[in-house]
Amino acid sequence: MAAKSYTVAIAGATGVVGGTVRRILEERGFPTRELRLLASPRSAGLKLPFNGAELEVQTLGRGSFAGVDLVFFAAGGAVSTEYVPQAVAAGATAIDKSSVFRMDPGVPLVVPEVNADDLLWHDGIIATPNCSTIQMVVALKPIYDAVGIKRVVVSTYQAVSGSGQGGIAALDAQARQWAAGEPVEQQFYPHQIAFNALPHIDGFLPSGYTKEEQKMVDEAKKIFADPDLQVTATCVRVPVFGAHSEALNVQTWKKLTAGEARELLAGSPGIVVVDDPAELRYPLPLAAEGTDPVYVGRIREDLTVDHGLDLWVVSDNLRKGAALNAVQIAEELVHRELL
Amino acid sequence: MAAKSYTVAIAGATGVVGGTVRRILEERGFPTRELRLLASPRSAGLKLPFNGAELEVQTLGRGSFAGVDLVFFAAGGAVSTEYVPQAVAAGATAIDKSSVFRMDPGVPLVVPEVNADDLLWHDGIIATPNCSTIQMVVALKPIYDAVGIKRVVVSTYQAVSGSGQGGIAALDAQARQWAAGEPVEQQFYPHQIAFNALPHIDGFLPSGYTKEEQKMVDEAKKIFADPDLQVTATCVRVPVFGAHSEALNVQTWKKLTAGEARELLAGSPGIVVVDDPAELRYPLPLAAEGTDPVYVGRIREDLTVDHGLDLWVVSDNLRKGAALNAVQIAEELVHRELL
Repeated sequence: MAAKSYTVAIAGATGVVGGTVRRILEERGFPTRELRLLASPRSAGLKLPFNGAELEVQTLGRGSFAGVDLVFFAAGGAVSTEYVPQAVAAGATAIDKSSVFRMDPGVPLVVPEVNADDLLWHDGIIATPNCSTIQMVVALKPIYDAVGIKRVVVSTYQAVSGSGQGGIAALDAQARQWAAGEPVEQQFYPHQIAFNALPHIDGFLPSGYTKEEQKMVDEAKKIFADPDLQVTATCVRVPVFGAHSEALNVQTWKKLTAGEARELLAGSPGIVVVDDPAELRYPLPLAAEGTDPVYVGRIREDLTVDHGLDLWVVSDNLRKGAALNAVQIAEELVHRELL
Repeated sequence: MAAKSYTVAIAGATGVVGGTVRRILEERGFPTRELRLLASPRSAGLKLPFNGAELEVQTLGRGSFAGVDLVFFAAGGAVSTEYVPQAVAAGATAIDKSSVFRMDPGVPLVVPEVNADDLLWHDGIIATPNCSTIQMVVALKPIYDAVGIKRVVVSTYQAVSGSGQGGIAALDAQARQWAAGEPVEQQFYPHQIAFNALPHIDGFLPSGYTKEEQKMVDEAKKIFADPDLQVTATCVRVPVFGAHSEALNVQTWKKLTAGEARELLAGSPGIVVVDDPAELRYPLPLAAEGTDPVYVGRIREDLTVDHGLDLWVVSDNLRKGAALNAVQIAEELVHRELL
């Protein structure tokens, strides 16, 4: 019997996340009968490769979802707000990268290594978390299961690819202007990103935290189904192209030595431990770019608190932080016959 | 009566910190009768400007300190180990930027805004802390005095100038190679620094922490004369040229609201509060370069712990983090007639 195959659509197919979804579907051989590339009218007609063919980008619109089994939404909040309900009404399952549905109690927010079982109660929409949350919860999961987690203090070092093509173009242009001895022009970000660090990602809330910081708090609680999990975040954009780094300080409920944590993490899905300082080996964003794992290193026992650990966590934010996580959700849906 | 004037020497006068000491002595009109520029033989004969004159660099050696009142040491640990005792034996006071004497119980470790009174018990040597420590303790001091500090979790975003000319040259060369489409060559740092983030500053200790991280712990305890002060650090080099940034999570003994912290910090010496997110104003390393203050912003109340605060602290690591702090120590010695 032939394996089941699916009609898949990508809304936002010409964006950096949408493009990465397309490539990962091909790389991983997702059982795709037909791939429909959807984008705004100005991208319609563009041709993009998939499985040896050239597919023409179509304008996303009312009729886009007829006969579609699965839609990856990677076009931002406004598009998801308008079209996710249409896709579901047309009978498709929507895997949504935007923040629109993430905190909806009727929508599971899923990182397969952490809470794949939440897929069981999906009702047409599955949200995939923010990039900075995903790599954090993958790294925390084995620790959470082994000894419980009370509190996490996280500081991020986030790549410009997390802002999409505009962010990549800004760093690229500014670094070239600098090298050419030309004035560096502010573009896309409110301040120069080349040779700078911007403690500002997404909008500010009345609390003084940014939405990006608040997402790490709220999404982690939902993914672990643990409203008592305490997370406080400082999110910073740095002049790195393609992978996020995070310094995590973790307070656990029970003791876990650095050696135990290292062993535990090394045996856990989605994680590669890179932690050999004597050999100058630790996770680096430049090395993580274009790869799938969540890399964990600099694993240290923090003695300033009962049961503390310091970790350094790096992952490609377009892959595990976005497109790969979405495709893994789709694979899990197939595996569990939920599609 | 003419004000007293001093014979001053800079050991390591051709390095980035030594050069900054020379410029700051001139900028601030430090009462200098004579300035002696000392360096290794390969820099001898080089001429450097000071107060309108051109001063010739001399080889640092046994006779360098005759008649000298004050020596700034900015040439690294080996030079300080050898020559600080010689300078003191010759009757000079040594202000040492290296880490050699910092934890010596007979040597005060001074940040004038925090513990200027420790100058009273100096015995010829005064140590100036590591750059990453200085800006942290300046920002913490008003909070410490007002409500007490129990624990600090700090993640740093450190500029290449903290590594001296080799670090600056590496980032400069690699960014230019990248812009020219040439292969980016590893130099100075163990990994590429351009478009990367290296969780590795100074050597590794058996605990897994780096010496840079351990310095922040040990030096903060000594400066506050508080062995119970808990600090845990992750130190990271980022592709920024000239100012360090730090994300601080601070747990205080008593409650301090974000508003109270903002007001307190704004009225404290050495600190400029930049904290108006609605106007996109927060401390930025690129803006801090070449300036004196410790900038504090992103001041938020962290509700994940009793009495928590999150802060973002930025300062030019060559100025307040090194040369300026040393010159301020000298000024304080003059002011207190301790020289």
